[in-house]
Amino acid sequence: MRPYLLLSNDDGVQAPGLHFLIEALRPHADLLVMAPDSARSGFGCSITSSHPLTYRVVRREEGLTVCSCSGTPVDCVKMALNLFPDRKPDLVVGGINHGDNSSVNAHYSGTMGVAIEGALQGYPAVAFSLCDHRPDADFTPLRPYLTKLAEKALALKMPAFTCLNVNFPAVPQFQGVKVCRMARSRWQKEVERRRHPWGPEYFWLVGESVELEPEATDTDRWALAHGYVAITPTQLDVTAYGLMQPLQDLL
Amino acid sequence: MRPYLLLSNDDGVQAPGLHFLIEALRPHADLLVMAPDSARSGFGCSITSSHPLTYRVVRREEGLTVCSCSGTPVDCVKMALNLFPDRKPDLVVGGINHGDNSSVNAHYSGTMGVAIEGALQGYPAVAFSLCDHRPDADFTPLRPYLTKLAEKALALKMPAFTCLNVNFPAVPQFQGVKVCRMARSRWQKEVERRRHPWGPEYFWLVGESVELEPEATDTDRWALAHGYVAITPTQLDVTAYGLMQPLQDLL
Repeated sequence: MRPYLLLSNDDGVQAPGLHFLIEALRPHADLLVMAPDSARSGFGCSITSSHPLTYRVVRREEGLTVCSCSGTPVDCVKMALNLFPDRKPDLVVGGINHGDNSSVNAHYSGTMGVAIEGALQGYPAVAFSLCDHRPDADFTPLRPYLTKLAEKALALKMPAFTCLNVNFPAVPQFQGVKVCRMARSRWQKEVERRRHPWGPEYFWLVGESVELEPEATDTDRWALAHGYVAITPTQLDVTAYGLMQPLQDLL
Repeated sequence: MRPYLLLSNDDGVQAPGLHFLIEALRPHADLLVMAPDSARSGFGCSITSSHPLTYRVVRREEGLTVCSCSGTPVDCVKMALNLFPDRKPDLVVGGINHGDNSSVNAHYSGTMGVAIEGALQGYPAVAFSLCDHRPDADFTPLRPYLTKLAEKALALKMPAFTCLNVNFPAVPQFQGVKVCRMARSRWQKEVERRRHPWGPEYFWLVGESVELEPEATDTDRWALAHGYVAITPTQLDVTAYGLMQPLQDLL
């Protein structure tokens, strides 16, 4: 039996990255796609509690159902798992994101939100991102890696409460694949001031990312800067175990 | 010099939990409050990129400035740090949340989003939540703990990329304080189907939380169920270090 994959993203159901992913995986798996009806970039693991959700099927073919949903990326995963319960996914996939979800960006990423929610629900899960936020980003170099990494994610028998964060550098050819840790970086200068035509000030979130450990060679940022595909295994148990005793001593 | 604290929440600038926190901390510290203009429950670490942000000062007194912001909890922290750069906070505080942010709820929590963003920006940070989502929840039993735990968080000299997730059980008197790990739990039955007066279906996100390790006695859920204040030290480096070698072996 063909594997069954649940796909979502944060750039919305129309995004080229999602459609590239669908076409790349379709020969190898049955797909259920539940994606936001428009862009939800930077939505992280947010969920919708203040208003109800809707969805509609926008494409249905043999082995492929695509739905558009009014909610966040995480809402999409919850909606799909609850409204299509007859078949459990073998893998939950987020992406392909238009933009870099390495380092601390993972905390804000709706693409990672998809993978985290998949893993929280007990399924193997992976997020794919290309470090090129342009709508016309070239996803072609990713094609052979997507199916191979999806297969590996299935073969890995990932432990509960983990998922994979895969980032591709924006280069025509990759140097290879590296297993990495999350680099420490920090966003700064994040607010750009503008003035409304009628007078009041408003602010755009912008910013520049500063590497806090530029010398390290085992990070996702290093791998990406050197043309490698960066795979960061990610844990959902965020307990800082090493801090438990110092904290206990202080209380 | 009095310490300087940056406060935000996800229940909005009007929420009783935030105002209780302000009044509890005010005798001991100067406060800058930048909170969402209405409820942003479940917004996690989401940020706003698709539209601009605004804010306004709604209260200004000696040692206290309260601002209402159009953005998410994380946006609020970014706005405050960028628009009030003259004094760096000694501590960033999220809360007091109306509701339980223990176990996997931390992933969806805007209150934790505040603390995570504070820590990502390099500041000691703590999130306070009361396991009672009602607007008229009784915060009184928390009062002595808030200042004490804020002092401890300052004294701890928390390592970079960590923060504290503090949850209070909804009981009149606490058994004590426990340092805990994050319990593993899972939300299920998360979608409730309704019908619009005009016919179409819509869906509310609901759900029930199932404990995956009910026997464990070192978790936040156990502590809360037994009347203890649960402190879960939390790490922002979410690399699953133990999975790096197995993943490497597979590639």
